[in-house]
Amino acid sequence: MNAPHLPRALAPKALRPLRFEQVVIVGKYQAPGARNAVEEIAQFLMAEGCDVSLELQTALNTGITDHPTIDVAGIDCHTQLALVVGGDGTLLGIGRQMARHGVPLVGINQGRLGFITDIPFDSYREVLRPILRGEYQEEARSLMAASVWRDGRCVFEATALNDVVVNRGAVASMIELRVEIDGHFVANQRADGLIIASPTGSTAYALSAGGPLMHPDIGGWVMVPIAPHTLSNRPVVLPSHSEIAMEIVAGRDASASFDMQSFASLLHGDRVVVRRSEHSLRLLHPVGWNYFDTLRRKLHWNEGA
Amino acid sequence: MNAPHLPRALAPKALRPLRFEQVVIVGKYQAPGARNAVEEIAQFLMAEGCDVSLELQTALNTGITDHPTIDVAGIDCHTQLALVVGGDGTLLGIGRQMARHGVPLVGINQGRLGFITDIPFDSYREVLRPILRGEYQEEARSLMAASVWRDGRCVFEATALNDVVVNRGAVASMIELRVEIDGHFVANQRADGLIIASPTGSTAYALSAGGPLMHPDIGGWVMVPIAPHTLSNRPVVLPSHSEIAMEIVAGRDASASFDMQSFASLLHGDRVVVRRSEHSLRLLHPVGWNYFDTLRRKLHWNEGA
Amino acid sequence: MNAPHLPRALAPKALRPLRFEQVVIVGKYQAPGARNAVEEIAQFLMAEGCDVSLELQTALNTGITDHPTIDVAGIDCHTQLALVVGGDGTLLGIGRQMARHGVPLVGINQGRLGFITDIPFDSYREVLRPILRGEYQEEARSLMAASVWRDGRCVFEATALNDVVVNRGAVASMIELRVEIDGHFVANQRADGLIIASPTGSTAYALSAGGPLMHPDIGGWVMVPIAPHTLSNRPVVLPSHSEIAMEIVAGRDASASFDMQSFASLLHGDRVVVRRSEHSLRLLHPVGWNYFDTLRRKLHWNEGA
Amino acid sequence: MNAPHLPRALAPKALRPLRFEQVVIVGKYQAPGARNAVEEIAQFLMAEGCDVSLELQTALNTGITDHPTIDVAGIDCHTQLALVVGGDGTLLGIGRQMARHGVPLVGINQGRLGFITDIPFDSYREVLRPILRGEYQEEARSLMAASVWRDGRCVFEATALNDVVVNRGAVASMIELRVEIDGHFVANQRADGLIIASPTGSTAYALSAGGPLMHPDIGGWVMVPIAPHTLSNRPVVLPSHSEIAMEIVAGRDASASFDMQSFASLLHGDRVVVRRSEHSLRLLHPVGWNYFDTLRRKLHWNEGA
Repeated sequence: MNAPHLPRALAPKALRPLRFEQVVIVGKYQAPGARNAVEEIAQFLMAEGCDVSLELQTALNTGITDHPTIDVAGIDCHTQLALVVGGDGTLLGIGRQMARHGVPLVGINQGRLGFITDIPFDSYREVLRPILRGEYQEEARSLMAASVWRDGRCVFEATALNDVVVNRGAVASMIELRVEIDGHFVANQRADGLIIASPTGSTAYALSAGGPLMHPDIGGWVMVPIAPHTLSNRPVVLPSHSEIAMEIVAGRDASASFDMQSFASLLHGDRVVVRRSEHSLRLLHPVGWNYFDTLRRKLHWNEGA
Repeated sequence: MNAPHLPRALAPKALRPLRFEQVVIVGKYQAPGARNAVEEIAQFLMAEGCDVSLELQTALNTGITDHPTIDVAGIDCHTQLALVVGGDGTLLGIGRQMARHGVPLVGINQGRLGFITDIPFDSYREVLRPILRGEYQEEARSLMAASVWRDGRCVFEATALNDVVVNRGAVASMIELRVEIDGHFVANQRADGLIIASPTGSTAYALSAGGPLMHPDIGGWVMVPIAPHTLSNRPVVLPSHSEIAMEIVAGRDASASFDMQSFASLLHGDRVVVRRSEHSLRLLHPVGWNYFDTLRRKLHWNEGA
Repeated sequence: MNAPHLPRALAPKALRPLRFEQVVIVGKYQAPGARNAVEEIAQFLMAEGCDVSLELQTALNTGITDHPTIDVAGIDCHTQLALVVGGDGTLLGIGRQMARHGVPLVGINQGRLGFITDIPFDSYREVLRPILRGEYQEEARSLMAASVWRDGRCVFEATALNDVVVNRGAVASMIELRVEIDGHFVANQRADGLIIASPTGSTAYALSAGGPLMHPDIGGWVMVPIAPHTLSNRPVVLPSHSEIAMEIVAGRDASASFDMQSFASLLHGDRVVVRRSEHSLRLLHPVGWNYFDTLRRKLHWNEGA
Repeated sequence: MNAPHLPRALAPKALRPLRFEQVVIVGKYQAPGARNAVEEIAQFLMAEGCDVSLELQTALNTGITDHPTIDVAGIDCHTQLALVVGGDGTLLGIGRQMARHGVPLVGINQGRLGFITDIPFDSYREVLRPILRGEYQEEARSLMAASVWRDGRCVFEATALNDVVVNRGAVASMIELRVEIDGHFVANQRADGLIIASPTGSTAYALSAGGPLMHPDIGGWVMVPIAPHTLSNRPVVLPSHSEIAMEIVAGRDASASFDMQSFASLLHGDRVVVRRSEHSLRLLHPVGWNYFDTLRRKLHWNEGA
């Protein structure tokens, strides 16, 4: 994140386009009013001189046919900017898929502002104009590359922006997980589950389970036990270069989830492994944006009591 | 619980037998060494002049055939004392079934002492002798009567000594519960689940989820949300005369558990209702026993750091 | 507290006046607009047929001279009702002094509603009318009688409605307190301090330090350590018949506070003792009032996130 | 910290002495048995071919006169290794002073092992021999440079290895602190105080106040409020390149502490500023040492329950 007095984004002009010209719009699927919002934003962008395409599902769901469409898998480095109309969930879902092409994202929120979708629909024109001409602050959100290993073979892979969670079955008592970091034994955790959260995920499930907030610039994850049997099993902040492995030692019907994706029916001996992805999510914010303003607003700090 | 300087148990002598003479022994099923322990205790009791019977499963599992057997359902007020050889889990399991007859229990622990099984096997002779002749402290542990209601009909009933828990499915995100107390709306809780724990259960799952310890003399329950979405959803201590209802409003595959018993597949609209049972578990302790000694030992207070 | 369907207050009519006729008004000192509010309420009460007097300081501070005055020490059982105009702090301060006479209190709040002052100034007429004619719900808030003992002699006494706190000096590391309950050793606590809170105080300082919320009907206190050295030193809910003693074992410049009153410079060996006061604070609420409505509003439950 | 399979220390041999030859011993002042321990270690080191000197106060307190002495201020880069005999507190105290010269430290503990003094006195010979010939793992612990500003001038400066704490006066209610990070407003915190802890300090006071454990490789601090008024004021992990400023807005008798050093009587408007020191503490551990082994042992993980 840039210090507010010297937006990093303003500095190395030569290294990036003077303007974003190839823009794709992704809309929250099936949200009421989505069609109007997407249409209006598309027209605004064209008036600003951009080439506008629509993400395929967005086009299908809204019924807008005026623009070229492109499916998420086809979005690559030819796209200069992705404009996401929706909430944090929409942006995270699309961002996870686009991270590997390095396409930057901007989030426009029609409802209550989120932790990462911070441009209100009401004022998107004033906010987008400077961003389109290259005046913005950029931050990188790190991703986790997770995998499930059984009998020495990888049986599942996923990428997560928020968190990787291993948890117990529904009608079961706690599970026991053997935790290793960089191949070194840490502890056997008996708990409802264990969360490995990124800074982005530190404001979500991990916070509910008692974890700390983590500034996105922290190169690290937080490991948060859910209802741990041992009271001194407190959240641990780990460097993001750590490889974290969780092996199912006891407990029935354990499952793992990677953001919203799930892998059910983990067996004893299965290992869920988390390490840093080589990709990051690029988020663009208006100049002057600050992470702490978002925290203060979302967590209702300083509203009296 | 009695104040240590005036054991309540010593006072109203007339109201109870001068000695416990009809004693049943219940042993932890399949524990190694159980046969020897049960046999030895039985002989000790007979030498002390007691009529000894064995709980049926205990007799079958240990293969001891020297004593009359009685199944748990048949234990009634003719039994004056139940001696449980095992850990907290064994005692809670048997206690839950016997509470309605008011038979007092004593717990002898072969391993590490528990929260409620506080007589070490090594010294049971010295500790039991005074108890058998009526010198003891008694405490009552309250029970919860829980039920599940669907479409206005009761579809499940159970008794719990530790806790009643409603929790989310394994591969699911949080559930939403509408909580009512004495028919009055309290809040919609979005969380992994909600625990209603007795003082006895306050040292178990509820403690892991962030609840307080509760002295057994507190006439109350504690309601502890598991990983609540709203940070101000803190544990609430409720009077035991409260009727607590939790209705499933959202979330898939929710289930309820009552100590170790489970009721799976709760549907939207199902209500789990908890109120105080008319019965209590009667626990006998040696004179001088104190709840805080147990807490200090089990929670490793004052062991330095 | 009454169950909502059967307000206890409506039942034993014969045992209380058909109407409250002798009413004293106590206003928040020096609050802007206090004079107008007090004057208006006084006139309303007279129109309703009450004899109105003003608490002495309220009369002096507002300059209102139309009514008899009475100082707090003089308020006794001849007064039938005390009307407090102000916030929770004002009501607690006045309530602590009046508890011994059993005079019931009603709180009218000019600003944001509090935990116990729940009648908004905007609607006091409609709310007070039924209360004045005996239609109300009453709840009792228990008080703590606290004392400081040095060399076997009592050197300070105070009453507290919220909490009794022993804490470390400013420029000092933690203190160590030997805690005894009913004369029995519990633990040596090393921490920044230790809070003994009533249900009323459970929404105040104790909550910030990690304690549970406690329904006012709970006959108990909660003991909450502040930043305890030992992680298993969790909040403990104790029966209100307990006598809690905290002895200063180590640490410099410890002090004790009793709601807002303080006793500084505790010495090693000094003991702070808390037990239940024989008096309670009587609070009157409109019929239909419910404690959980207040919690939900004050703690912003169910406001989305 | 090195991954266990490739100790960083073993790699770039050319860049460091083949052996440590200039060693200074620092002993815990006034500890019983210190003289014998220091004398024995000194003789061992000489037998290993080292030039041994004693820190001046250590020499004076133990009365050992056989070695050259050097006061802490005089320890500079000519010293190749400092051997600290004592606990974590002793090592932190000496380490804070020596960090600017980059002299590495090894901690030998006569009592219970600490978080950073991990060589037991019983086995120092076997452990030190490989370290002396350059086979070790090294870790760097970051330091905080803190200062107090009044009326635009710096009135106090200190270095801290564990934490910088601003807290309220003894007989006072909470303080209010305006927190700014890199010049940007974060929030006004009303609490008993605010802790800024390093990873090293995350196992100390910050842990008691509810903060997470932080791996020493995390380039960051954790900001932990003590008993915060607003329940959503949770611990925040901040990048170590942040400059954190805390300004006293309200509250009497606030003070600041920097590890064990204190600055009392902060006034409204005073600012306590924390940033990363340019120096780090260099700790040497035997090959195979792992941070998580220490955590597991000190926090009693995996000892059953």
